[in-house]
Amino acid sequence: MLFNKKDQNTLNKIITARRDVRGNNFINKKISKKNLLKILDSAQNAPSVGYSQPWRFVMVKEEEKDLVYKHFSSSFEKSKKKFKNKKLYNSLKLEGIKESHTNIAVYYKKSKSDILGQTYMKRTGEYSVVCAILNMWLTARSLNIGMGWVSILKPKKINKIFDINKQDYKFIAYLCFGYTKEFYSEPELKKLGWKKKKKLKSLILKN
Amino acid sequence: MLFNKKDQNTLNKIITARRDVRGNNFINKKISKKNLLKILDSAQNAPSVGYSQPWRFVMVKEEEKDLVYKHFSSSFEKSKKKFKNKKLYNSLKLEGIKESHTNIAVYYKKSKSDILGQTYMKRTGEYSVVCAILNMWLTARSLNIGMGWVSILKPKKINKIFDINKQDYKFIAYLCFGYTKEFYSEPELKKLGWKKKKKLKSLILKN
Repeated sequence: MLFNKKDQNTLNKIITARRDVRGNNFINKKISKKNLLKILDSAQNAPSVGYSQPWRFVMVKEEEKDLVYKHFSSSFEKSKKKFKNKKLYNSLKLEGIKESHTNIAVYYKKSKSDILGQTYMKRTGEYSVVCAILNMWLTARSLNIGMGWVSILKPKKINKIFDINKQDYKFIAYLCFGYTKEFYSEPELKKLGWKKKKKLKSLILKN
Repeated sequence: MLFNKKDQNTLNKIITARRDVRGNNFINKKISKKNLLKILDSAQNAPSVGYSQPWRFVMVKEEEKDLVYKHFSSSFEKSKKKFKNKKLYNSLKLEGIKESHTNIAVYYKKSKSDILGQTYMKRTGEYSVVCAILNMWLTARSLNIGMGWVSILKPKKINKIFDINKQDYKFIAYLCFGYTKEFYSEPELKKLGWKKKKKLKSLILKN
């Protein structure tokens, strides 16, 4: 299949309009099963090392959301002492666990046998799961559904909430999906002055 | 910005048509600077933990390609003893280092100060770099340019070739970009019977 300029332009718009959405922007609106399946389906079309498809999903129940939120809150409190710009950091809303409609915890399934392409770089297995997450994120955005990735969490606690065995699975990400009031035109942390966008030149180590 | 069904369909087509391209499919055709910039630009619009943008790129020189290829070849030889389906594994073409027009080595820039969102899950920094790689991969595909991710490589050797300091940077991926004879309709490893596509049901740990 060959794509044209219009297709390229559409992809570019979706990539550019993707945002990390938090609770200040999610609205109380159901995501249909059909759309949720589209999002999960896009994960299955992600690249994976040796076609291992090591992504696994926990569909989070309402009562589990409360436990995750409680754990997030205490982790966030503890993290506050780490940052110099305290006033801004403390004021940030960094998750949308309870405000979003659907929460999915994403895991990496460890393999007991050797995986093609993973013999020298073990971590490519986890990287495959991250590729699945980005496919989900972009697909959600194309459906006008926001996604937020919550990471101020301790994997050990998350595993305990979902009763997941760390010998077999590694916790990669906690994702919140929901419709939004709006999508900001720029990353929120850029808008708020937390960090600037880097210039391409500064990203090229060697040319 | 709101997207419509047509946009969603376009994204889905690009995600589904993305392939890991190897040397048996690259053709000898130059990638324009303009298109290369589009690919790098899409990396800059990837999500990153705490808006840290920790992706860094080494644009590989022709003479360096030879060194990487030499290292790949010896690693691939050594990896052959790991797999049971020897006949198939040994026959696979798992890279396109010399056949592709542009090679980019991708690194993660380690941070000396704390990064928002990275306090409990350090690896989210590397995951951000992987998000950038998938944006590049999809953008390349939308430009009808193939990409292959080579991972049968030892980071230590790759760092040595590019004279990169592992205290400051971590090697994440080696990417090969080029125009192609064709894009397979399915992942090559699926086509060849190496692994089957998993059913969605088997990917849901808890529902």
